[in-house]
Amino acid sequence: MVAERTTPRRPGRPRNVEPSPEFVARMSEIVETAARVFQAKGYDAGSLDDVAAALDLRKASLYYYVHSKAELLYRVFDRAITLALARLSDALLIEDPRRRLEALIRDQTVNVAREPAFFTVFFDQRPRLASTYESDIRAKERQYLRVFREAVESAVDQGSLSPVDPRYGAQAILGMTSWVYKWFDPGRDDPERFASTCIELLLGPTG
Amino acid sequence: MVAERTTPRRPGRPRNVEPSPEFVARMSEIVETAARVFQAKGYDAGSLDDVAAALDLRKASLYYYVHSKAELLYRVFDRAITLALARLSDALLIEDPRRRLEALIRDQTVNVAREPAFFTVFFDQRPRLASTYESDIRAKERQYLRVFREAVESAVDQGSLSPVDPRYGAQAILGMTSWVYKWFDPGRDDPERFASTCIELLLGPTG
Repeated sequence: MVAERTTPRRPGRPRNVEPSPEFVARMSEIVETAARVFQAKGYDAGSLDDVAAALDLRKASLYYYVHSKAELLYRVFDRAITLALARLSDALLIEDPRRRLEALIRDQTVNVAREPAFFTVFFDQRPRLASTYESDIRAKERQYLRVFREAVESAVDQGSLSPVDPRYGAQAILGMTSWVYKWFDPGRDDPERFASTCIELLLGPTG
Repeated sequence: MVAERTTPRRPGRPRNVEPSPEFVARMSEIVETAARVFQAKGYDAGSLDDVAAALDLRKASLYYYVHSKAELLYRVFDRAITLALARLSDALLIEDPRRRLEALIRDQTVNVAREPAFFTVFFDQRPRLASTYESDIRAKERQYLRVFREAVESAVDQGSLSPVDPRYGAQAILGMTSWVYKWFDPGRDDPERFASTCIELLLGPTG
C-alpha cells in the first residue's frame, strides 16, 4: 500500500495519477530495502546510494520513485504504522473485552517480531523524521494508542484487568510487546509464546 | 564512578594510576555531555567537536580524557549500566519476593525516566558500540537481566505472579518499564505513578 505523494511532482515528469501495478510493486521493494539499509546503518549513515546499490538500480532511477532520503524515511514510517493499524482490524471485531485485549497483544507482538527492520527504524529513527511528515505519522500513532487505551478501559470495566489509568496501562502493554525488537532472537524465540507470557502476566491464565 | 581505562595510555603521557578528584569530576562531566550530544544528534552525526564545544574545551584537551569517540560511547554505556546495577542493590536485600519485584520495577522505571539521555543512547545506539567493548557491556547487561529473571522466578514460586517462563517474564517487565524513554513527557508524567501502574497490572493491587 502506497501513500499519496505529499510533495509536488517536478515539472516535466509524466503524471501517474493512478500508479501502475509495476510502480506500486517497485515502490514497495524500494521501501523494504530502505528499511533494511536504515536499520543496518542508521538514517544518517545510510544513503540513497546504498539503497540504489542494494536494488541494483541507478540513483537517477530511484528519483523517479522518491524525491529525497527524507521522503523515503517517511515512507518506511508510513508503511510500518499503516500495516500495524491494518492488522488490528480483526481484533476490533471481538466483543469480549478480555479476548479483544488478548488479540491486540498477540497482533502487536507478532507485528513487531516479524518486521524488525521496519520497527527498528520506526522506533529508533523517529528524531530523524522531517517535520513535514511528523503530523501525519503522529495522527496514525495516536489512533494506534487509542485502540489500546480503549481496550484497556474495557478490560478494566469487565474486571479482567487491574484497575489502572488507561493511558498508562496502554503504554505499559505497548512497551512490553514492542520491546521484542531489542532482544528477540528469531532462531530461538517465538512471538506467539512471548505474547502468551504477556497475556498471562496481565490477565492471568488463558482459558 | 569511573571505569578503569581499557585502552593503553599513549607513551609520554603522565600516569594517573589513582585519578585525581578533579580528573574524575571532569571525566564525569564529559560523559554526561557526550550522552546529551549522542542523544540529540545520534552517534554517527555527533562528533568530539560537538562534545568539546558544549564543554567549552579544546578538542586537544578532550583527548587527555578519552582516546576516541568510540571510547566515549563506551563510557556512556558503562555509566548507564553501572548506575542501573548499583541502584538495584537495596531491592536485592528485600526478602519477600513480591516486595522485591515491586522495588525492582520502581528502580528500573525511575532509572530510565531520570536519565533519558543515557538510556536513549544505551538502548538505541547499541549497534554503534565498538566490538572491543561489547563483551564488557554484555556481561553487565546479563547480570541485570539475571536479577530480574530470578525475581520473576521467586514471585512465581510465591504465587504472587502468574506462572510464566522466567526469561520471557523478565523481558516483558524490562520492556514495560524501559519503554518510558520513548514516550514519557517529564512535564506531564510521573515515573512513580507509572511504576505503580506496572506493579498493579502484574501483581494486582498494592497492599
